[in-house]
Amino acid sequence: MYRTKTCGELRLANLNETVTLAGWVQRIRKMGGMTFIDLRDRYGITQLFFNQENNANLCEQANKLGREFVLQITGEVAERSAKNAKNPTGDIEIIVSELNVLNAAQTPPFTIEDETDGGDDLRMKYRYLDLRRACVRANLELRHKMTIEVRSYLDKQGFLEVETPVLVNSTPEGARDFVVPSRMNPGQFYALPQSPQILKQLLMVSGFDRYFQIVKCFRDEDLRADRQPEFTQIDCEMSFVEQEDILNMFEGMSRHLFKTIKGIDLPKLPRMTWHNAMKYYGSDKPDTRFEMQFVELMDVLKGFGFSVFDSANYIGGICAKGAASYTRKQLDQLTEFVKRPQIGAKGLVYARIEADGNVKSSVDKFYTQEVLQKLKTAFNAEVGDLILIMSGDDANKTRKQLCELRLEMGSQLGLRDKNKYSCLWVIDFPMYEWSDEENRLMAMHHPFTSPKPEDIPLLDTDPANVRANAYDMVINGVEVGGGSIRIHDAKLQEKVFEILGFTKEEAQAKFGFLMNAFKFGAPPHGGLAYGLDRFVSLFAGLDSIRDCIAFPKNNSGRDVMLDAPGVLDQIQLDELGLIVKEEK
Amino acid sequence: MYRTKTCGELRLANLNETVTLAGWVQRIRKMGGMTFIDLRDRYGITQLFFNQENNANLCEQANKLGREFVLQITGEVAERSAKNAKNPTGDIEIIVSELNVLNAAQTPPFTIEDETDGGDDLRMKYRYLDLRRACVRANLELRHKMTIEVRSYLDKQGFLEVETPVLVNSTPEGARDFVVPSRMNPGQFYALPQSPQILKQLLMVSGFDRYFQIVKCFRDEDLRADRQPEFTQIDCEMSFVEQEDILNMFEGMSRHLFKTIKGIDLPKLPRMTWHNAMKYYGSDKPDTRFEMQFVELMDVLKGFGFSVFDSANYIGGICAKGAASYTRKQLDQLTEFVKRPQIGAKGLVYARIEADGNVKSSVDKFYTQEVLQKLKTAFNAEVGDLILIMSGDDANKTRKQLCELRLEMGSQLGLRDKNKYSCLWVIDFPMYEWSDEENRLMAMHHPFTSPKPEDIPLLDTDPANVRANAYDMVINGVEVGGGSIRIHDAKLQEKVFEILGFTKEEAQAKFGFLMNAFKFGAPPHGGLAYGLDRFVSLFAGLDSIRDCIAFPKNNSGRDVMLDAPGVLDQIQLDELGLIVKEEK
Repeated sequence: MYRTKTCGELRLANLNETVTLAGWVQRIRKMGGMTFIDLRDRYGITQLFFNQENNANLCEQANKLGREFVLQITGEVAERSAKNAKNPTGDIEIIVSELNVLNAAQTPPFTIEDETDGGDDLRMKYRYLDLRRACVRANLELRHKMTIEVRSYLDKQGFLEVETPVLVNSTPEGARDFVVPSRMNPGQFYALPQSPQILKQLLMVSGFDRYFQIVKCFRDEDLRADRQPEFTQIDCEMSFVEQEDILNMFEGMSRHLFKTIKGIDLPKLPRMTWHNAMKYYGSDKPDTRFEMQFVELMDVLKGFGFSVFDSANYIGGICAKGAASYTRKQLDQLTEFVKRPQIGAKGLVYARIEADGNVKSSVDKFYTQEVLQKLKTAFNAEVGDLILIMSGDDANKTRKQLCELRLEMGSQLGLRDKNKYSCLWVIDFPMYEWSDEENRLMAMHHPFTSPKPEDIPLLDTDPANVRANAYDMVINGVEVGGGSIRIHDAKLQEKVFEILGFTKEEAQAKFGFLMNAFKFGAPPHGGLAYGLDRFVSLFAGLDSIRDCIAFPKNNSGRDVMLDAPGVLDQIQLDELGLIVKEEK
Repeated sequence: MYRTKTCGELRLANLNETVTLAGWVQRIRKMGGMTFIDLRDRYGITQLFFNQENNANLCEQANKLGREFVLQITGEVAERSAKNAKNPTGDIEIIVSELNVLNAAQTPPFTIEDETDGGDDLRMKYRYLDLRRACVRANLELRHKMTIEVRSYLDKQGFLEVETPVLVNSTPEGARDFVVPSRMNPGQFYALPQSPQILKQLLMVSGFDRYFQIVKCFRDEDLRADRQPEFTQIDCEMSFVEQEDILNMFEGMSRHLFKTIKGIDLPKLPRMTWHNAMKYYGSDKPDTRFEMQFVELMDVLKGFGFSVFDSANYIGGICAKGAASYTRKQLDQLTEFVKRPQIGAKGLVYARIEADGNVKSSVDKFYTQEVLQKLKTAFNAEVGDLILIMSGDDANKTRKQLCELRLEMGSQLGLRDKNKYSCLWVIDFPMYEWSDEENRLMAMHHPFTSPKPEDIPLLDTDPANVRANAYDMVINGVEVGGGSIRIHDAKLQEKVFEILGFTKEEAQAKFGFLMNAFKFGAPPHGGLAYGLDRFVSLFAGLDSIRDCIAFPKNNSGRDVMLDAPGVLDQIQLDELGLIVKEEK
């Protein structure tokens, strides 16, 4: 071992001990005949002291070192005259007697500090240097701790971690697969799993009873800020359970994580139906750190000659407490915000509750104070509040726009504190959603999701209104997990496929494999999957999942550090029997 | 929850309790008016009792059930008249009062018993049914337990589990990569990692200090019995360490696993140099459960007119204790064994130590009893022992043949007990081995492995004799883990590349990425990787790694259950810009 202690552990209690440390040069300061070096390793930073008077030669060597040099030093622990209360080792320093340069270092292209001068692209290219920053490493330490605690909880609950294969076959429905050409089976391809969904259901057919896996999944989608082509799920499945059992089991897991990692006692999770989540928050993943629920205003505001509202199929608004002081400029900016193409609203109506209790709105010419007072009552609004109203043809589309506004107002009013956590279950998702693109009903979750037993009769008469035994866990407006009770009855499964527009032959071709397995005695089962990257990001207070991933890809799916993907040798292509088309 | 108890937990202490169980029908026996059903779940088997007299209707329903039907039953725990001591629940049975068929089942294509009537191919096709067999599930339960204990040990030792990407770039040297075409970067491919070698070394450059990962790795090799295209490694790396630190750390991990999983106190692991492993066992992974070490016989047997030995560059043998009773037929079979093409020896000479102490050999006409007594002495052989001798031009080639014979004799004499474990470190591997194919020295481990400091001068004069800081952990003749101290000095790395025959430009092109990272302050580091599949197989006493993998592939790299790989749609190929060549 190159060291007897780490750079994070020495205290006044170690005074006069002779120790050997190893680490990187964080900083060098020269003051008169003295040289101070901050030596850094994973565990902390310890100050080294060199003195011209004591050992001129050694001090001279120290003066020649640069940032990020790798050192091994031996010396005596001494009390500092100028202590640093911010650093756990700040009471001591090492009076160095031996210095061994283990490796020199070029000056890194950016500073290795929490507040670095390196831009995103540079840091990604030199990710191995970016990972030296304590704030980045802390995210990965957190990730490690969380997976240790997830496994600890699930193991205690009798779950078995079973590895499912990475080289599988292409799955119908869902996102695009990454594929892997098979050299041994020319012309054929494996697919990388989008999730182990079918395999975990097979494990239930196998009687595994309680399965989990922390597992890489792959989706070849066009990437957005918070998507990665490879991501990690905490994937779980249980047999002989109903929805209630799963909600309790995984609420327990979340409680365990909040307690052990964040020291937070999570209250019993509220449950919100999908219907109410849409109605009151315009989202199936409401951020419930703050209220500001939607109020529907068709009864209040329709029919007074304001054509925008009069022709709308939905009018709704939010009340921003204390925001009546918003200036005209701020209100204009909000209007611009909702009119951005990403949101796509036509406009925004506002109403202030003034000091005298009167309501002053941007559409005063259409509404009497009497009507506006009804508006105020609808929101239970008080003096100083700001009401923001949107309308549209399509209720759910408008709700989604209003949701964006609500989140923006929440941010502006400081209601979305990253250190505050609000968790809930969203339940009773619809089985199906209409796809204009495909001109048919699509499975909202996936086609193996079971309908609520009481809604099964509706499958024949009103399938669009059938609710599923599907559930999402939402924290701070982020869907961290979701799942469903699966269909284990072959006949019900056939009917569900029928509604999805598959003929028996198509259903057999696409899903026959799983349906055949179910013929040999499938138990009732269900499960869920958490997005580990998102869960860690939430706990770390990150805006993007990227910083809790050691080696993430950029928005073009490239690893700029490894310079992957790359071009193959002709020999490799030949072995695979593939020709790459020339670009046009 | 569909049950109040599992099928594995009821005992006499639960007498008269009303319980609900769920599981699969293992067996139905009808005796007079009584029906007995064995109900199975992951936790055990419980006997259900139906009686014509008590409830004729229910009994009739029970009689109609078939194997592998999924049931939910409620009933009272009663004491059995005929107890079954072999089954932990064998003292009780359930007098069933309610029966709910959760799912019917077709008769499975083979019996769900430890001793099944299903052949390999059928069981692989219906792997989800094969996994219902308790003996198969036990292997996966063991795998789960082992990974829990590995993580527990490494976490306590301060290791961080860091996930490295699956979509990386093609690595030089080593086996063939699986590749993944990138849709977003047309004409370019990711590679699946053969191991996270480079990434874990980068994590050391990043100061992660102690890293591990239980991680899938991929090699597109032609498969042998005990190879899978995807396999799992326990991958580890440490900074600021020497070989001794790594051996101690991972000897500790093995000790932890043996203790917690098998209840075995592992003694301090012996260390054997690669040189001695080859000399005494003809293998770099000797099975040390039994002695039977090689004795070299050039001095004893050369020069007596037996042309085979007289022209040999190596003569060596083993002494099989108590095997003098081997018949002529058995000895002929051993000769056939070593002459098989897989071994490729030309022949086998034997010598028995007879009851009177005389030695009787198959080459008596060339050797006097005096010489044969020297032979006996060389082995310390005793009355009743059998000496087996092989010779050849190439010492190491002959040693490998003799190794096969030794293992075969070990098996025949019952010396390779699967419940006995003999672990050791093999150390001091050569840095290089000569490749006839490439006509150059090749890295025996990989090109980042550091030479022993004392052998560095030999790099210039006699590179073939330079020993590496490389080590393997061997258990019962299986290499379960291996690794090395890495080079962290750029100049030494350059020299090693030079000896491997790379120009500076080639070295830069192939390994420049890692070498550049090393310029920013690489710490001394090293590590190792265990083959999890092999480790679990050893603990489970399996002959193949296949049965400790939930969904393994066959020797053609196919998953016959999923029917993967498969053909892609033209649309998918077009999106990827690929053309599949027609087969000739």
